[in-house]
Amino acid sequence: MTSRKVIELFYDVVSPYSYFGFEVMCRYRHVWNIELILRPAFLGGIMQGAGNKPPGLVPNKFLYMTKDMTRLSEYFGVPLEAPANPFEAMFEKGSLSAMRFVTAVKEKEKGGDKQVEQVSRELWRRIWKEDKDITKPESLSEAALKAGLSNSEIKELLELSTSKEIKDKLKGATQEALEHGSFGFPMMVCHVNGKPEMFFGSDRFELMAHCIGEKWLGPQPNLSAAKL
Amino acid sequence: MTSRKVIELFYDVVSPYSYFGFEVMCRYRHVWNIELILRPAFLGGIMQGAGNKPPGLVPNKFLYMTKDMTRLSEYFGVPLEAPANPFEAMFEKGSLSAMRFVTAVKEKEKGGDKQVEQVSRELWRRIWKEDKDITKPESLSEAALKAGLSNSEIKELLELSTSKEIKDKLKGATQEALEHGSFGFPMMVCHVNGKPEMFFGSDRFELMAHCIGEKWLGPQPNLSAAKL
Repeated sequence: MTSRKVIELFYDVVSPYSYFGFEVMCRYRHVWNIELILRPAFLGGIMQGAGNKPPGLVPNKFLYMTKDMTRLSEYFGVPLEAPANPFEAMFEKGSLSAMRFVTAVKEKEKGGDKQVEQVSRELWRRIWKEDKDITKPESLSEAALKAGLSNSEIKELLELSTSKEIKDKLKGATQEALEHGSFGFPMMVCHVNGKPEMFFGSDRFELMAHCIGEKWLGPQPNLSAAKL
Repeated sequence: MTSRKVIELFYDVVSPYSYFGFEVMCRYRHVWNIELILRPAFLGGIMQGAGNKPPGLVPNKFLYMTKDMTRLSEYFGVPLEAPANPFEAMFEKGSLSAMRFVTAVKEKEKGGDKQVEQVSRELWRRIWKEDKDITKPESLSEAALKAGLSNSEIKELLELSTSKEIKDKLKGATQEALEHGSFGFPMMVCHVNGKPEMFFGSDRFELMAHCIGEKWLGPQPNLSAAKL
């Protein structure tokens, strides 16, 4: 038996392409011989740290991305709709409190990452499908309730999410992503023979599969959507 | 028999990702039920017209792209090496005379596009494999000779390439690309049921196949490399 390759997925729920990357990787952890590690991080910190600008500022690129996301949503089977005001949602309101909350969920969860996965998914669904807020405590609560967490767990996580410990954890994950060469999300870091191999975006799965010795089989069925 | 779908491929030999897109599309015209139309255009005009900036200006993105191109070169079987000074080659020297020359080849060629294909490939090989000039008349001649054109044909094409007619043709193709929503190359415009569907980059083949009702079978064998 060959040992499982570790793939770290760095993401932020503010990023729609991360949503595709997240769902595809969550499916492929049951297909490939890999251990997937979810790494919530903060895209705002990446853009600032890398000196990158959002691609949507070029008008033709913005129009294309809108179309591209619609096509990919259908192809990957990941329900996604842009919020009415994407600039406000992504850059003015942002995702700092949401990603601190996901970091707190990750910190508290033992024996797996089902809660991190489900809470992340519910937050994406809010911003990238239902055009709902993800900045207020009551918004985070709603997402966590849908993800199956209890009221008492959520209360504790909301408190924890504003602690210095969690703020530093999120900063640390973001810094680690920058050190891997990140300039945006999603970013996958594959550990193959002790060497990290970084892949950016949700359009390198086939290439990534080739590099880690697995096979790309196209988008797999969206099992999580079955419960919708 | 269903009618063949027309796919226009807009490209510039200064663009390495266009090289991948070009080779893959040249292979798939023998695999899919399509008519491929090669559309030489000018990337400099696209970047200016769309208000876009080269992605390599962000340091982490530049490092990643270098790695990404090496991986894709191996995966697609398209021999590619960055020139020693990519910024000089791409932005200072540029591709205006080269793309005017390719436009002249396209204008003169009758009954197919074998010459356009071969001359484009030889120009790519010069800049993106051999780190050679593509701006001087003698450079264009060398590429065209390797592509199988005769000395007298080349002499005529070099003259034609500086004519107002050809300058206007290249401008027209570039303008047409902008009107299709281009902000970079390669750009594929698929005409499906009378509606143009635009795809950008060399990482949307699988999605494009899905949209035009064909099947993506991965990179096909590099038949043109057999003669190298």
